[in-house]
Amino acid sequence: MTGKAPGKLTVAQAGEAATIAAIREAAPSETNGDDAAVLDPAPPNSRHLATTDVLVEGVHFRFDWSTPFEVGAKAVTQNFADIQAMGGRPTAVLMSLAAPADLELGVVSEIARGVGECAAPWAVELVGGDVVSSTQLVVSLTAVGVLAGPDPAMTIDGAVPGHEVIASGVIGHSAAGEAVLRYFGSREAVPDDAVLQDLVRRHCAPELVVGRGSVARAAGVSSMTDNSDGLLRDLTSLATRSGVRLDLDGTALTPDAQLYYAGEMLGVDPWEWVLTGGEDHTLIGTTAHQVPAGYRTLGTVRGAGDGPAVTVDGHMPIYTGGWDSLA
Amino acid sequence: MTGKAPGKLTVAQAGEAATIAAIREAAPSETNGDDAAVLDPAPPNSRHLATTDVLVEGVHFRFDWSTPFEVGAKAVTQNFADIQAMGGRPTAVLMSLAAPADLELGVVSEIARGVGECAAPWAVELVGGDVVSSTQLVVSLTAVGVLAGPDPAMTIDGAVPGHEVIASGVIGHSAAGEAVLRYFGSREAVPDDAVLQDLVRRHCAPELVVGRGSVARAAGVSSMTDNSDGLLRDLTSLATRSGVRLDLDGTALTPDAQLYYAGEMLGVDPWEWVLTGGEDHTLIGTTAHQVPAGYRTLGTVRGAGDGPAVTVDGHMPIYTGGWDSLA
Repeated sequence: MTGKAPGKLTVAQAGEAATIAAIREAAPSETNGDDAAVLDPAPPNSRHLATTDVLVEGVHFRFDWSTPFEVGAKAVTQNFADIQAMGGRPTAVLMSLAAPADLELGVVSEIARGVGECAAPWAVELVGGDVVSSTQLVVSLTAVGVLAGPDPAMTIDGAVPGHEVIASGVIGHSAAGEAVLRYFGSREAVPDDAVLQDLVRRHCAPELVVGRGSVARAAGVSSMTDNSDGLLRDLTSLATRSGVRLDLDGTALTPDAQLYYAGEMLGVDPWEWVLTGGEDHTLIGTTAHQVPAGYRTLGTVRGAGDGPAVTVDGHMPIYTGGWDSLA
Repeated sequence: MTGKAPGKLTVAQAGEAATIAAIREAAPSETNGDDAAVLDPAPPNSRHLATTDVLVEGVHFRFDWSTPFEVGAKAVTQNFADIQAMGGRPTAVLMSLAAPADLELGVVSEIARGVGECAAPWAVELVGGDVVSSTQLVVSLTAVGVLAGPDPAMTIDGAVPGHEVIASGVIGHSAAGEAVLRYFGSREAVPDDAVLQDLVRRHCAPELVVGRGSVARAAGVSSMTDNSDGLLRDLTSLATRSGVRLDLDGTALTPDAQLYYAGEMLGVDPWEWVLTGGEDHTLIGTTAHQVPAGYRTLGTVRGAGDGPAVTVDGHMPIYTGGWDSLA
């Protein structure tokens, strides 16, 4: 007996079997526990989707900013946004943890609980994973999904001149929340202010709307991605891959009251958050058809030509840049 | 221009886009490059499988022992062995890399090439992934597979008293190869001796036989796993989960000439490698039917009772233990 409470036990003290048991208790699934997970049969005439995303402590999250639960939830959101952006729905998630020996078992449990609870509204379970030893905590999630029916997936190269640019979800709020955390130094130090707390939550655990991707695909949306590395960066990828240019409508992008409020407090122009901030996991795409339910218009798709791939009201955006995961 | 050869460029110098481009060049796939990979439609009446495994530099591999190509190949082998152990065949692989800023881009390319070439005999491509920054190199692979037809998967809890214990592949050779590397200190220092070099290769890049899992499932094998953490450890898991005991036949387990040769040189009893060594990714299972092609008999399944879960010729094995990924 170590005399420590179970939650204070480290993963090295607990060992592999007990750590896996803790994960399975926090995010239960009958499917989990064998060499590979056997997924439920998919509906006839469907294809599978697969995507993976990694979060590294100190790079993508810090425990004085985010709770372990939020880290697990955010990892799910990132992966499920990628499944949504193809027009599919997620059906399973797997988690690999590379964890330092002194990581508390309770932290692992909370990460797994975040994964399980964030996946639950989609009727998705944590069906498998791996736990190994490392010097830095690395949370690697893989989502599998299903693309029902014969319609094409929404691809990043599917934008066509004349399309409308559309979006579903807030833009810039995650970046604003990160700026708030950076400004005050820690989650604890952030004032008890409804706007600031809401922005911080949108950074630490951005949320998706279940079904939003499938709705867009059913409405004939042909190109889509999610706002993960920054609005301009992600839209530039979409424009370049599609061989088009995008002109955004400044009015549609105007920062909302929350962003202006935080921007004034922090001395930051909120347009920077809107144009370059990522990790909202907002779905952004283009369509030749009626704007689907839950989406709004952001601009217009133009043909290839000289000048920047993405403009705002016909001009070069006032802020550029975004997130490069290796630079 | 840095003046450096492209292979000497670091991932931080190259940035995210160029690193992803290098991976896609080394392991090309038309399916790669969108938010999520859209997999080919699976045959009717099939279910999907998913599994994930992580390799950490300094824990699971060292570049003075293994080439980057071998690290990628071994990661594929580990994952595909798990798909095989269910009776399925792999259909797609995704790779996440958490890489230190100073990692050479050429190393990333070689890891990806190892993934692509090891997956190629299965007609499987690297269809997606993620690259992020970290202090330690973490290679996280996920394999998706297909389990064709309505027969049950081979599960770890499917052993029944009266079954024969069966195996396909060498046992103990990866552990012997690791011991050789540890004894001589580095790959370079290993003598130019056919046996030693072969054992080292079996540690650095163990190989699977394509289709071996499906063959077993078609032959009615009901329980299976792979030898990843050590023969006794993996068979103990299978016995415990199945609620049975396994008695192995000492003659069938007898170390082969290669193991005796290396054992004598290193002063190690080769039985230790056979009983406790992992990472051969040998398929081990139990069956009520005829032993499938490519498999051999290792022992017999007994009913639950007192005493150890796994015995050799009715006795407690002379070596116990195995790999705990967190201890």
